[in-house]
Amino acid sequence: MRTRFQQGLDELKQKLLAMSGMAEQAVDRAVMAYQSRDLQLCNLVLEGEQAINMIEREIDELGLDLLAMQQPMAVDLRFVTAVMKINADLERVGDQAVNIAERVISTVSLPEIDLPIDIQRMAGAASGMVRRALEAFIGADSQMAEAVLQMDDVVDRMNREMFQALVKCMHDRPESVQQALDALLIGRALERVADHATNIAEDVIFWVRGADVRHHANHDQLGAPAL
Amino acid sequence: MRTRFQQGLDELKQKLLAMSGMAEQAVDRAVMAYQSRDLQLCNLVLEGEQAINMIEREIDELGLDLLAMQQPMAVDLRFVTAVMKINADLERVGDQAVNIAERVISTVSLPEIDLPIDIQRMAGAASGMVRRALEAFIGADSQMAEAVLQMDDVVDRMNREMFQALVKCMHDRPESVQQALDALLIGRALERVADHATNIAEDVIFWVRGADVRHHANHDQLGAPAL
Repeated sequence: MRTRFQQGLDELKQKLLAMSGMAEQAVDRAVMAYQSRDLQLCNLVLEGEQAINMIEREIDELGLDLLAMQQPMAVDLRFVTAVMKINADLERVGDQAVNIAERVISTVSLPEIDLPIDIQRMAGAASGMVRRALEAFIGADSQMAEAVLQMDDVVDRMNREMFQALVKCMHDRPESVQQALDALLIGRALERVADHATNIAEDVIFWVRGADVRHHANHDQLGAPAL
Repeated sequence: MRTRFQQGLDELKQKLLAMSGMAEQAVDRAVMAYQSRDLQLCNLVLEGEQAINMIEREIDELGLDLLAMQQPMAVDLRFVTAVMKINADLERVGDQAVNIAERVISTVSLPEIDLPIDIQRMAGAASGMVRRALEAFIGADSQMAEAVLQMDDVVDRMNREMFQALVKCMHDRPESVQQALDALLIGRALERVADHATNIAEDVIFWVRGADVRHHANHDQLGAPAL
């Protein structure tokens, strides 16, 4: 028999998945808007922010309600607090989508110029990290979460390369400064998205290992790596 | 008589205050390093990051332990989860200090140039917001927290003005591109610090009002503003 508590945990997981879909979609739309100079897509991202904030609040409330139930098991506590942290990171992924959309709005008002960068590729890597971090969470898969941490280095490298290319571009072609800067800030926002995916992956690892350690009945060593 | 639970809550508060002092100091040092082109100060900030991460983990662990105790009151639950959220924001304030220190290291390696901006003033405003958000938390003072939200607009405006001045500078003086970009990214990091202060203030408001609403015995309306 499923208890009310277990039903609550399921609901929490479902809501977090919905939230994650919304945050990923916002990033994808903002990047598509950059590629296609599409202000309507930008507006969709800006309008979507409120829905993301609303579901963030719902998840927090549900998490608090579950924590308030009597004597949740340690493993459930960790699960609920992991959800609440992942929730906060996803909300900030949504904020980065808004940042990107704002840079797109800025850049679309300027003459279109060619820049020596590949935003699409970096965006694919960053939003792939978010997706895999969530998959790791759903599957309680700390190995997949570890793989997300590795991917962060790739995105950081892409961002550094883009940064250098754009600085050179600003230096050599002063008329491109504003557009290059918009692109640079979009790259930076994508790097933040990757950072949030990294945070999520770390929460997954902490949660899964905490659960392991608990099963091995040594609760005091949670601070130390269990693997 | 103080219970073990109450002692735990006090300890949690003390640790959060220590954390907040560390995060503020890191920002102040990074900005001082920019003003004085002091690489040693930068290194202090980079080395301090680990201590901040450690206390963040301690606060999380202690918060989880307290949540695991039987039947905490709703108001205590909200307090503990507010602490855990504020904790995450303070850790990210520390990350921004690291970002600033990295830009300072970059900029110190380049010729010193005059830029038409006032980083010190913006830094004062941003770290003042963090300090006041924590004071609001300590005093359970939702009015002070509201004042922090107002200050965010001021920092945003400073950041926008700085942004425009620096873009103009990059455009007119291509030899200043890298230094102007470093300054621009420092400004952006300070704007993030202000955003984290805003998050903290919002958590304080949510916590204080939640407590109010609870006292007025209408738990279901927590999602709606209580004032």
